[in-house]
Formats: sequence, structure tokens, C-alpha cells
Amino acid sequence: MTDSYTTVSRRRFLQQTGAGLLASHVAAGAAAAQRVPPPPGRKLGWALVGLGSLSINQIMPAFARCEKSRLAAFVSGSPDKARTLAARYGVPEKNIYDYDSYDRIRDNADIDIVYVVLPNGMHAEYTVRAAQAGKHVLCEKPMANTPEECRQMIDAAKAAERKLMVAYRLRYEPYTQALIKAVRDEEMGPLRFVLADAGFSIGDPDQWRLKKAMAGGGSLMDIGIYSLNAARYISGEEPVEVFAMEHSTPGDPRFKEVEENVTFQLRFPSGVLANCTSSYGSPLNRFRGVGTKGWIELEPALSYGGLRMHASTGRTLEERLHPVVDHFAAEMDHLSGCVMDGTEPLTPGEEGLKDLQIMMAIYESARERRIVKLL
Amino acid sequence: MTDSYTTVSRRRFLQQTGAGLLASHVAAGAAAAQRVPPPPGRKLGWALVGLGSLSINQIMPAFARCEKSRLAAFVSGSPDKARTLAARYGVPEKNIYDYDSYDRIRDNADIDIVYVVLPNGMHAEYTVRAAQAGKHVLCEKPMANTPEECRQMIDAAKAAERKLMVAYRLRYEPYTQALIKAVRDEEMGPLRFVLADAGFSIGDPDQWRLKKAMAGGGSLMDIGIYSLNAARYISGEEPVEVFAMEHSTPGDPRFKEVEENVTFQLRFPSGVLANCTSSYGSPLNRFRGVGTKGWIELEPALSYGGLRMHASTGRTLEERLHPVVDHFAAEMDHLSGCVMDGTEPLTPGEEGLKDLQIMMAIYESARERRIVKLL
Repeated sequence: MTDSYTTVSRRRFLQQTGAGLLASHVAAGAAAAQRVPPPPGRKLGWALVGLGSLSINQIMPAFARCEKSRLAAFVSGSPDKARTLAARYGVPEKNIYDYDSYDRIRDNADIDIVYVVLPNGMHAEYTVRAAQAGKHVLCEKPMANTPEECRQMIDAAKAAERKLMVAYRLRYEPYTQALIKAVRDEEMGPLRFVLADAGFSIGDPDQWRLKKAMAGGGSLMDIGIYSLNAARYISGEEPVEVFAMEHSTPGDPRFKEVEENVTFQLRFPSGVLANCTSSYGSPLNRFRGVGTKGWIELEPALSYGGLRMHASTGRTLEERLHPVVDHFAAEMDHLSGCVMDGTEPLTPGEEGLKDLQIMMAIYESARERRIVKLL
Repeated sequence: MTDSYTTVSRRRFLQQTGAGLLASHVAAGAAAAQRVPPPPGRKLGWALVGLGSLSINQIMPAFARCEKSRLAAFVSGSPDKARTLAARYGVPEKNIYDYDSYDRIRDNADIDIVYVVLPNGMHAEYTVRAAQAGKHVLCEKPMANTPEECRQMIDAAKAAERKLMVAYRLRYEPYTQALIKAVRDEEMGPLRFVLADAGFSIGDPDQWRLKKAMAGGGSLMDIGIYSLNAARYISGEEPVEVFAMEHSTPGDPRFKEVEENVTFQLRFPSGVLANCTSSYGSPLNRFRGVGTKGWIELEPALSYGGLRMHASTGRTLEERLHPVVDHFAAEMDHLSGCVMDGTEPLTPGEEGLKDLQIMMAIYESARERRIVKLL
């Protein structure tokens, strides 16, 4: 994560310069680059379980931005891949595990926290085994394929007295946090609508994300969950009912087992209505909160970087800049901090369970063509 | 309307200069200002029925931009208001009518076309009477309060062999036309979603728009109709089913008789799904077509001026400029042209009827809490 001095300094710089926002953004960055960061404090050791593209391209490099977390171990079914990556990241040979030897992490004091980055259908088993081995767990979203699996994971962590967090990375980065704060502060008046769209065009038809047993479902489980989670954190409420429609392009080899496109509506207790989309066929990347006086939105809203915020009253339009952080470093340091301080994570297992329950209701609504009530 | 030379010239200028888009926009405008327009050709005479704010602030000034239409008569229940406006716009005293003398427009050769700008509940009567008086009719949207009234209007125009057009002004302006063309050309791949949002915060609780008998309904009839119509012209299809949710702020004096907020979903035969909103409580003003490769949107999409177009592939974002025209001048000249040439308007009575039928289904869905099938 960006260290706090740099963050505060840059924000103040931006506020002072007003019109020269982008120029000062660059200037503040250059000044920050000359500051020598102090030596890190204590860092907890992390084991990465699953060495797919998310682990390789996003999570491993993120440890360089962490203040409280270090990459300590790998768990993988591919020993060659694990050894190559271990050499790059300085992970000792003794800290490489496969799925059979996984439970022996219990005896490895280098490992405090396990980050489960496996296909969705394996989240429950590897989270439960980690907890039983006495380790804290960060689990990728969706938390599991079913609410029942989520409950098993929560129970296992409780029984072992370990932390369990779901990797809702956006909750740990400043653009999302600023969006939530602006809505809570009713900057644009009381919230009335959430418009949340998340999608991308998925590639290889043979990948696990397109297999029902491994993924639990299609775009909704993988990317539509961002729209759903955003509707919940932007409104700050739990939906009382949902309605959904699905469509998958006939004959497209990617969508033999799972759905391509979903539109869903949520009703919240205050009367806020949400219109959401989920897609494996189209690029969608925008969350907007609409109040009585205007709207605030992120677009892109869920990319790993390059998020942008705009706010409008209908007659005015402004861009708002916020500090840029590595989302994965931010979420990992959050959990390390919780473990060190004995506090609860912002997105615990119960948060993952809620999304699973609502996603099951969305699927039920699309299948049965009717409103599904929640709670 | 902008004359065609200026339009072509400005567009070429913009294409040549690339990065200096805004500067060249201004430069081209300055050059255009020095061209003396030729004398107008034949203009048809228009009678305005209803002298409310839309007539006074938008429609009357628009005649100065018309090539084929001139303001010839007023029909109003307020003789003082009519006389004051007649003096400003050079309408002769003899061409001022009230609602009792209205049918005598039959004998006035100055009047070719009647523009009905009355409360929705009066559209049918004043359109039918105009047709029976031998006049062509442009009727504001929504076309009427019910499909049955729409059918009466269509029948009356047919019986009198007069043109009947509904005032969907956006269909006659270049941003909307460019959006439709881009989607038809599949610039962003085949269309998959339409996201259409239309709303504003309505003022005076005593206005006719908030009375069920006069307005036929609430935000959906007045502003949500833009979202619905956009979903239809962006997709180029007719929806096969609809689902809707409503919410009105409890205790708000504006929403005693009619609804404040509506979210509705449409499914089209090709599989395109539309997520739409309608609001009398929040500013919403955006239409987006989402294809497999990206999206194109207008925001603002339905303001009287200042429309903007953006297109994105998810990795790129560009603004696109188009010629700016007066929407009301464009639609009035369209109908004058149809009358002169004996052609059918782009948005005839049948187009207004379709929206009414779907809006009735949206209300039914919200009331009965179920999908309503169309066609």
C-alpha cells in the first residue's frame, strides 16, 4: 500500500492546486519517489493456494507493496510451476506444498495466513483444511459454490478460532471507499437508485470458470457478484426481494454449462431500487449511486487499476481523484492487521455467505420467472 | 436547423484536426456565422395548442430555426397569455382560438398543422378534433393516457386522410441518430444490453403532471417513456416481456396520485436485455448500447441541448461530436416535409401506441408483481 504520508501529502497537493489536478498528481508522485520508506514492521507469512493467473499476475507482485504481509509459501498441484515461481519470489523449497501435503502447513511457523485462489468449487475444502491446520484464511470470491459450503467454512474458522475473510478487494481501495462515504454523507441527497454493471468477454471455452461443477455458475458467480456486492455496500442495506432475467447466446461454445448474461433488480428496505447486470459476453464496469440531487459513479469501477470517479448534479459534472493503491496489497495487509490486532475483518465469511444466498435467489428468479423474496 | 453546408464543413474540420476537437468546433462555428442563409422556401403554418412552459420556452423560439414551418396560430384557454405571446411572435389576432372556438380552425387556411402540447389526458380529444377539422397533427408524448385513446387518434387521422406524428424529438437530432447507426452497424459487436435511464426531480406538487386523470400516470408516462422508447430504437426490436418494480417516497406530497420511481427490464426477441429506470425524484439522463466489444452512450441523452456521446471498448474511451440542432425545429420541419412530400413521418401514431401498450404492461407488472408478456 502507498504509505500514509505520501497519500496525505498528495491529497493536500491536489486540493491546493485545483485546476492543475493532473499535473500536480505527477509532481506529487515525483516528490514521493524520493522519500526512502522506513524499514517494515513485523510481517505475517502468507501461503498462496493455487497458482493461476490471478496469483501470478496480481497477487504475487502485490506483496512488494505490503507493509504487514510477506509471501512465505506456495500450495500447488504443479511442482514445476511452483519451483519456478519460488525462485523468482524467494520462497524456500521447504515451503512448497502440494494438495496432498497441504495439511502439513500446520507444522510450518512461517505460515500465518492462507490465501485460497483456487476454482470456486475448491474454496470450501481448502479453507476448512487451512482452518483445521490452525491458519487464518483469505478466500477469493465467490466464497464457495453454495451457501451450505459457506456455512461450513465459517463454522470451521470459528471452531479453530481463526479469522476468515473473503477477498472483496474493492472495499479496501480509496475510490470505492470514497463512493460509499459520499453516499452515506448524502452528498447527492438520499440514495434512490443503484446502477451496477459488471462484465467482460470471457476467452477460452475450456477454462474452469465455464464448468458448472468448478465455478458454481456463470458470469453471475464470477463478475456479476461485483454488481451485487456493490448494490449492497453502496446502499448499506440488505435486499428484500430480487427479480432476474438471463440470456446466453445460442450455440456459443462458452455457454454450454453456465449463463452468459443476467439482468437483475433488487429492492431494499428504504425503497432504494437497484438495476444490475452481469456478463461473460460484454464489457461492463460501472457502479453509480443516484440520489435525489445527483449521482456519483465509478467507471471503471472494478478494474485492478485506473478507477475513475465522476459526480454530477445533472447540470454539473466533475471528476474526483483519490489515492491509488494496489488492491491486493491493501486487502492482504487488512487481514494481517486484523490478525495482529485481534480485530474482525471488514468482509468476513458472513459477507460472502450473504452474496451466495442472494445469488441463489437470482438464479431461482431467472429459472422460475418470478420475484424471489429474501430474508 | 443548422444548414447542411455548415454541418458537413464542421464535421470534416473535426475529422481533420483530431486532437484539437474543441478548438475547431468553435472555429467552424465562427465561419458559419458569416454565411448569409438563403431565403426560406415554402413554410407550412402551425397552430400551437396549449401555451405552457414547453410551448413558451422551447417550441415558439424553435420556429426561428425552421426551414419549412412557421408559427401561425395559438389555441389557449388563457386569452391574455395568448395575446401577449401573439404580439411577441407576430401571430395575428384572428388566429387566436380558445377551446370552444377550436373547431373553427377548419376554416383557417393559415393553419396546416396543429401541435398538441396539452396535458396528456387532453391529447386524444384535441388530436381528433384537429383531424376532423382537416389539419395534420403533431402530438406531444405520451401520445395519450391509454392505448384505446391512441387508437381513436390514429383512426381519426386515417379517416380524415391527415398525417399524425408523435413528438419523439430525439429521433430527429444527430446524436440519437448516430447512436442508432453505430448500434445497427455493430461497431461494438452485436448488441447485448440497453441501459436507459431517464428522470428528474419534479417541482410543484400541484401541477397537472402529478394528477392521475390529467397525466395518465407518473414518471413513467412523462420521462420514463424516454427510456422505453430508447430501448426500442436502440435495439430496433419490440420487447417480448417486461418486469417492473415501483417505489414512491412515503409522505412526499408530489406522489399522492402517481408513482415516483420505476425500474423495468425488457427482453427482446434477439436476446438483448434492457435495464431501464424512470424517476420524478432523481436526475437520470443516460442511454447506453452495450455490444460484445464495447459500448456507446449518450449522457446527457435527453436534454434539449448539450448532448454528449462517448464510446468505449473497455480499454479505450473516446468522445464523439456531432452536429447540434434544435430538436423541436427538427421534428416540426420533419412533419412539414412529410406533409409537403406526401411521405409518412418516422414516428407516426402507431409508434406512440406501442409505447402506451408497453407502459400499461409495465404498470401491470409492478402492480401484480410478475412478468407481463407482450405481443
